[in-house]
Amino acid sequence: MSEQPESERPAPGVSRRGLFGLALGAGAAGLALGAGGGATAGVAVGRAREADASASAYEFYGAHQAGVVTPVQDHLHFAAFDMMPRTNRDDLVSLLQDWTYAAARLTQGLDVSASGAVGGPVQAPPDDTGEALGLPASGLTLTFGFGPTLFELDGEDRFGIAAGRPAVLERLPAFLGDDLDPAASNGDLCIQACADDPQVAVHAVRNLSRIAFGRARLRWSQLGFGRTSRTTTTQATPRNLFGFKDGTANILAGDRAGLDEHVWVAASDDPAWMAGGSYLVARKIAMMIETWDRVPLSEQQTIVGRTKAEGAPLSGGDEFAAPDFAAVDTAGTKAIPETSHVRLAHPDQNGGTRILRRGYNFVDGNNDLGRLDAGLFFLSFQRDPQQFVRLQRSLSSDVMNEYLRHVGSGLWAVPPGIAPGSFVGAGLFG
Amino acid sequence: MSEQPESERPAPGVSRRGLFGLALGAGAAGLALGAGGGATAGVAVGRAREADASASAYEFYGAHQAGVVTPVQDHLHFAAFDMMPRTNRDDLVSLLQDWTYAAARLTQGLDVSASGAVGGPVQAPPDDTGEALGLPASGLTLTFGFGPTLFELDGEDRFGIAAGRPAVLERLPAFLGDDLDPAASNGDLCIQACADDPQVAVHAVRNLSRIAFGRARLRWSQLGFGRTSRTTTTQATPRNLFGFKDGTANILAGDRAGLDEHVWVAASDDPAWMAGGSYLVARKIAMMIETWDRVPLSEQQTIVGRTKAEGAPLSGGDEFAAPDFAAVDTAGTKAIPETSHVRLAHPDQNGGTRILRRGYNFVDGNNDLGRLDAGLFFLSFQRDPQQFVRLQRSLSSDVMNEYLRHVGSGLWAVPPGIAPGSFVGAGLFG
Repeated sequence: MSEQPESERPAPGVSRRGLFGLALGAGAAGLALGAGGGATAGVAVGRAREADASASAYEFYGAHQAGVVTPVQDHLHFAAFDMMPRTNRDDLVSLLQDWTYAAARLTQGLDVSASGAVGGPVQAPPDDTGEALGLPASGLTLTFGFGPTLFELDGEDRFGIAAGRPAVLERLPAFLGDDLDPAASNGDLCIQACADDPQVAVHAVRNLSRIAFGRARLRWSQLGFGRTSRTTTTQATPRNLFGFKDGTANILAGDRAGLDEHVWVAASDDPAWMAGGSYLVARKIAMMIETWDRVPLSEQQTIVGRTKAEGAPLSGGDEFAAPDFAAVDTAGTKAIPETSHVRLAHPDQNGGTRILRRGYNFVDGNNDLGRLDAGLFFLSFQRDPQQFVRLQRSLSSDVMNEYLRHVGSGLWAVPPGIAPGSFVGAGLFG
Repeated sequence: MSEQPESERPAPGVSRRGLFGLALGAGAAGLALGAGGGATAGVAVGRAREADASASAYEFYGAHQAGVVTPVQDHLHFAAFDMMPRTNRDDLVSLLQDWTYAAARLTQGLDVSASGAVGGPVQAPPDDTGEALGLPASGLTLTFGFGPTLFELDGEDRFGIAAGRPAVLERLPAFLGDDLDPAASNGDLCIQACADDPQVAVHAVRNLSRIAFGRARLRWSQLGFGRTSRTTTTQATPRNLFGFKDGTANILAGDRAGLDEHVWVAASDDPAWMAGGSYLVARKIAMMIETWDRVPLSEQQTIVGRTKAEGAPLSGGDEFAAPDFAAVDTAGTKAIPETSHVRLAHPDQNGGTRILRRGYNFVDGNNDLGRLDAGLFFLSFQRDPQQFVRLQRSLSSDVMNEYLRHVGSGLWAVPPGIAPGSFVGAGLFG
């Protein structure tokens, strides 16, 4: 075992249920002797041995959770969980410990535990489900969040954490045009899994769901592809399913001052345990793409406020030119219409309000009318949820709304980064 | 226009509705003057100019349709269509011509028409929806199929093609354990879109659906990822969501004799217009992954008949060793159990019957119980559908069935490859 990298060893103080609790749960207690124990299989092929697990692996530990300013990966599996009835504070803490232990491994391209998919006793169910065997880390990040209901549900403080609840962590207000499905909204906990291989993201959510067995249950989940945001200077701006570039004016990972002002909770903000964290908003936005596709190009462009080809503001320049909202054409008409999306969402029109967007396109098959069930799974990180609220309210007069329907919504507090030996959100539990 | 590559020019004899019919459909007939006509936008940024469109582009024309023996791409968008009520033979032919025209372009990394997403009149809806602007061909293949109902629906020969119906093209028989959803089964036509970028596959299906407007309508569609099949000697065998390698003993692209015997319809087979074609079976197989995950490793392996780590047959050797079905252990027990999947599906146990598998994993979110709605979207190509029927019947005693539920099914005749200037299935229309 001396050849194992640091990340293969369970961190001190972290529950090892993630390591062998699954076998216990399946009634094979006598066999579950831990990684080094008893009747292990002859085969010992782990992910790290089949592939270069270090390829595109992001550091798990740090001041902030990964998956916020990390260059946006190609694929998403987002999952919201509810704690099971009659679970208590110890269950929640052990779950967060077990998730942390597993996430520290999965993000490094390792199986969910040291015995993993094939290295445990053959008479027991494997710890790891195995579909990522042989696949590298694939840039996997796992980002955890705590929803308002974790702190208080129907007036009850189930986990003794209500005192630590951020005052700003309230269910999002209703917005014009909301048509929310409770089965695709909210949740006590969330996990944002992003990776360059969808099988790796799905494997992570599946195994973290499995680890949660008896403590938390998957409430809803969403797959996405074709990131719609740009978070580094080198990433090209991808396109949403309206065919337009999306994320041009995003906050970039190198913009430390911008991130500190708009994304990361400061040490001076309340509560103290959230310092270095952020707030995550998810909105499942169905796009009426068949209707949009019948809109003339010129009208599509005035709705967005940018050209379709280059993504340049209609006031001129290239994609990255600042929009000139005062610019008028020879007839005196505003080059960028008052009701255009880019104007209504722009920081200059919203008192400097900015958010870090990290959305993905989705297609969930089609509906009974033969129309693709498609749209944008919008994700944004902000220092205060009111930043999102302000922008979303500003968009109430957005003519693009005619082609959108918000069908899912959620808000979660994203705890700060994790130190080796600790677990996500440890500061909340004192 | 002289700079345009061959594939940008409409092939002679092919309907140009795909080129400008969309604008007509939107009531802007006066503006739709074709690629070279009238009020074109100043911008002319096409996919081919933003990216190297030739990167990983497969030849569209040839003796066989692409997407059968092509090395399996990472992503799938499969779509089944029904012809609209009151459509006739001319509608069907024009649809196939328009689809062919568009597919010849899309697979080369081009927009759906020469004016595309941003090169047409700004006063008209663009021909192309635009979300693939800037993306390369990404290995896109588009494979078309004709279902039994295209030839005869409720006893009616809607398109005057019943005489050309292959005798073997009958709706698949019911199999033990079928729990088929009509909304995820069958269809007059199908398109298998495979690409290494899901946005490119989705873009193709979306635009082909749009071209079909008024003639055919999307019946159902399915996204998939993480191909489960191996079709070349160099592709590693991917894993299904049971965590096992899937596709080890597949027919390989280089095995000309095997393909001719098992996959391609021969010139001596009936009907003549299908020579060089194949038959495509799709099965949406839901996997009870939570239940599977509680099965001990040893039992998982005896159910499959292979080891989980290497995918080696339980009779010994490496992944590619031939299973020895006669091998017994010291107690006289068969090394590969009688009811194991590998034994029941193996050619040696089925009179030499083989099929070319090309399946994908899928995850469609989760159900009300918090379980991932996941499984295998099985796709196979065979010279005669009875090959699949034989193997599927053989699997009726497969103990793996306890963990599977077949929820979707379909069979289509896949016409041979297309010559420049012709269209898919032209031979059927004489």
